[in-house]
Amino acid sequence: MAASWVPDVDPSSDFSLANIPFGIITTQDDPAPHAAVAIGSHVLDLKVLAANSDLTKLFPGIDGLAEIFSQSSLNAFAQLGRAVHRQVRGAIQDLLSTDTQHPEVLRDNAELRKKALLPQRAVKMHLPMEIGDYTDFYAGFHHARRVGGMFRGMDNALQPNYLHLPVGYHGRASSVVVSGTPVRRPVGQILLDKDPVPVTAPSRKLDFELELGCFIARPNDMGSAIPVDEADEGHIFGYVLLNDWSARDVQAWEYVPLGPFNGKNFATTISPWVVLADALEPFRARPLENQTQLQQYLGEIQPPLQQYLREKRRDGVFDIQLEVELTTAEGDTTTISRTSSTNLIWSFPQMIAHHTLGGCPLRTGDLLGSGTISGQGRLESGSLLEMSENGWRVVELKGMDARTFLKDGDTVTLRGFCGVDGGRVGFGACEGRVYEALQKVTD
Amino acid sequence: MAASWVPDVDPSSDFSLANIPFGIITTQDDPAPHAAVAIGSHVLDLKVLAANSDLTKLFPGIDGLAEIFSQSSLNAFAQLGRAVHRQVRGAIQDLLSTDTQHPEVLRDNAELRKKALLPQRAVKMHLPMEIGDYTDFYAGFHHARRVGGMFRGMDNALQPNYLHLPVGYHGRASSVVVSGTPVRRPVGQILLDKDPVPVTAPSRKLDFELELGCFIARPNDMGSAIPVDEADEGHIFGYVLLNDWSARDVQAWEYVPLGPFNGKNFATTISPWVVLADALEPFRARPLENQTQLQQYLGEIQPPLQQYLREKRRDGVFDIQLEVELTTAEGDTTTISRTSSTNLIWSFPQMIAHHTLGGCPLRTGDLLGSGTISGQGRLESGSLLEMSENGWRVVELKGMDARTFLKDGDTVTLRGFCGVDGGRVGFGACEGRVYEALQKVTD
Repeated sequence: MAASWVPDVDPSSDFSLANIPFGIITTQDDPAPHAAVAIGSHVLDLKVLAANSDLTKLFPGIDGLAEIFSQSSLNAFAQLGRAVHRQVRGAIQDLLSTDTQHPEVLRDNAELRKKALLPQRAVKMHLPMEIGDYTDFYAGFHHARRVGGMFRGMDNALQPNYLHLPVGYHGRASSVVVSGTPVRRPVGQILLDKDPVPVTAPSRKLDFELELGCFIARPNDMGSAIPVDEADEGHIFGYVLLNDWSARDVQAWEYVPLGPFNGKNFATTISPWVVLADALEPFRARPLENQTQLQQYLGEIQPPLQQYLREKRRDGVFDIQLEVELTTAEGDTTTISRTSSTNLIWSFPQMIAHHTLGGCPLRTGDLLGSGTISGQGRLESGSLLEMSENGWRVVELKGMDARTFLKDGDTVTLRGFCGVDGGRVGFGACEGRVYEALQKVTD
Repeated sequence: MAASWVPDVDPSSDFSLANIPFGIITTQDDPAPHAAVAIGSHVLDLKVLAANSDLTKLFPGIDGLAEIFSQSSLNAFAQLGRAVHRQVRGAIQDLLSTDTQHPEVLRDNAELRKKALLPQRAVKMHLPMEIGDYTDFYAGFHHARRVGGMFRGMDNALQPNYLHLPVGYHGRASSVVVSGTPVRRPVGQILLDKDPVPVTAPSRKLDFELELGCFIARPNDMGSAIPVDEADEGHIFGYVLLNDWSARDVQAWEYVPLGPFNGKNFATTISPWVVLADALEPFRARPLENQTQLQQYLGEIQPPLQQYLREKRRDGVFDIQLEVELTTAEGDTTTISRTSSTNLIWSFPQMIAHHTLGGCPLRTGDLLGSGTISGQGRLESGSLLEMSENGWRVVELKGMDARTFLKDGDTVTLRGFCGVDGGRVGFGACEGRVYEALQKVTD
């Protein structure tokens, strides 16, 4: 990958020229949310670029981009489909390369550079997509197994359906917020000790969940399924980090028999930059697979996958290095977990094929969560539930502090990247700070 | 209630002058979806009315209605709040009354009557709201108890949380369709007999669910709960009938531990006319109550409700007469169930208070389902699962036919109304026909 002429692109930046993620910004000069891409510690304002250059020359054959880059979400851009995303990202990579074919547009145009190339700290990020529906899967094998084992013993850790289908549930789209949004500790019904009657109180077991999120590009018609081998090229727009905040005590009491509800619907945070599907292509890897790797954990041969879940490709997931940082109110930051997205047992194409098997319509902008991603070790966990073994062990922090679950004032930051310095494809921070509950006790 | 001058308002019509429900139509002259109200077997086209009369005289003090009535959903109207809905509905009732205060606007204006008052059969109905999120509760006491008893025995029929909180789950907003939309039998993973390995096949246990749906008017801020006594006046727009189509075999295999997914997300049908909250006010009734009526079923005194669920009013639900008709492909129609919405254990204000307890934001246009409404008797059931006892008993139909679950070509029609002939407040039909699955066997 060529170098960029943009100043100060730190080699360790998530936003190298190999990335070019898309987001929605507002700026000091323009309070209407609109599209931008990230490059190093800067953003390129695509609305300003469109207003000051000939887009038909930069992106030949693609109509309406100026209008699309002025919209308050990336939905219209996502709907154009993968071939257009590929072409636009490629053209922007060229524009920002030292040896660009169009030096006059930006590289050598000081006036436009000043207007269109802004420091990231000078812009405000917004939700990148208008999210119709949000679905959260449970494809993190070690998470599902460890949590199941905690409550049912390791012999019954995985439910009978777990290896046959990507288990998932419908989440709450209205509660998805962009990185940096404050997260209020939820009040809920919880059981204390052995009392069979609940109390209404702030959650005592507030947790994070380290996940990957996937945005849908093109929709499917209601009643028609998306074949697993067509899901990637035909329907995936890009990826974000996702923190599915969870109140474990609320969830434990409410979830039978219809699944998580208030234990999850108070907030889900996503990173602001959508890493396009093409940017992750060089970092493909094999997921945990039912017939081979899983055997070492489960000790028996698993039945073959249902036909609709069998992918032609064997490298359906990505090898993204993932980290969780916890920053205390006092400002001490500890990286409490390091893991990889290869710990997923299902790829997003498999999740999409399953989601639409019965004809459920996915729409442009819909968000799919992977489920919590954990490695095998306790300190590779994607949640405090696992790290603290449901509150029985403390997680040591810098500053002589420790946690079982989150305290008010804590900030959780998810990070993720692929590749080596100078060519990193990363997500930036997905962060949220916990604020105290509005009511202390209501009953 | 005064009589209407509109011709042929059948006394048994759901759409008496006491109702005035709102919907979204297209007409032969105007293919852009816009607002209307129903009166008898006619609709009053509000966009045409607005374009041809002085709305400031009809609806004094309310700005922007002409623009709002031209929109493709009722969301902007809903967001105006209950006081405005009350005033607008009252003014339309006056306009359509024999003794209207504004006879010149419509009653005595043959030209406008011809353009604005159209036979219902001449217009096409659309989804009335743009639905952000759809939540389905489980507040039908006899349904929850009977289904629970079927799978766990009557002594353990209700889960420990059931009497403490309105159990609910997040549904799939993209799959909500308006009455009349074809419903494709879903393909899914199902277990056959005692085989522990699933097959992928069309559902053999396709079912309906008789529910009431509630639309949200004004939103709450993220992080702030809606007090139960403020939910009705402050946040409820109106009601529809709702059929949450369910594939029982798909659901049974997939639902542990995160709840229903593909078993429900292929289609949910709603009736097209939103009956405003005020239209149902005269038909209030007491729900099943934890401390009193429930004792006769459960044989023990229940603990008091959590404070946030205690309503000042004791008549939080409505006494709506509900019916389910099944029409075979041959055209024989049987009313297979008759029940009432007083069989709900939770009111919608209680559902809203619970939904927002942890701060989950509800938005204008969000849809809440009540859960399946069943009476005590088998033929008062809101689902075939209950009527057929999960396939063990047949439900007799006219035409020498019978069902355990739905066949391709069956049409299910939900109906509901309050009040006596001449002043009925009803919903019209909520109907859908089942079409054969796209793939017979894939594995």
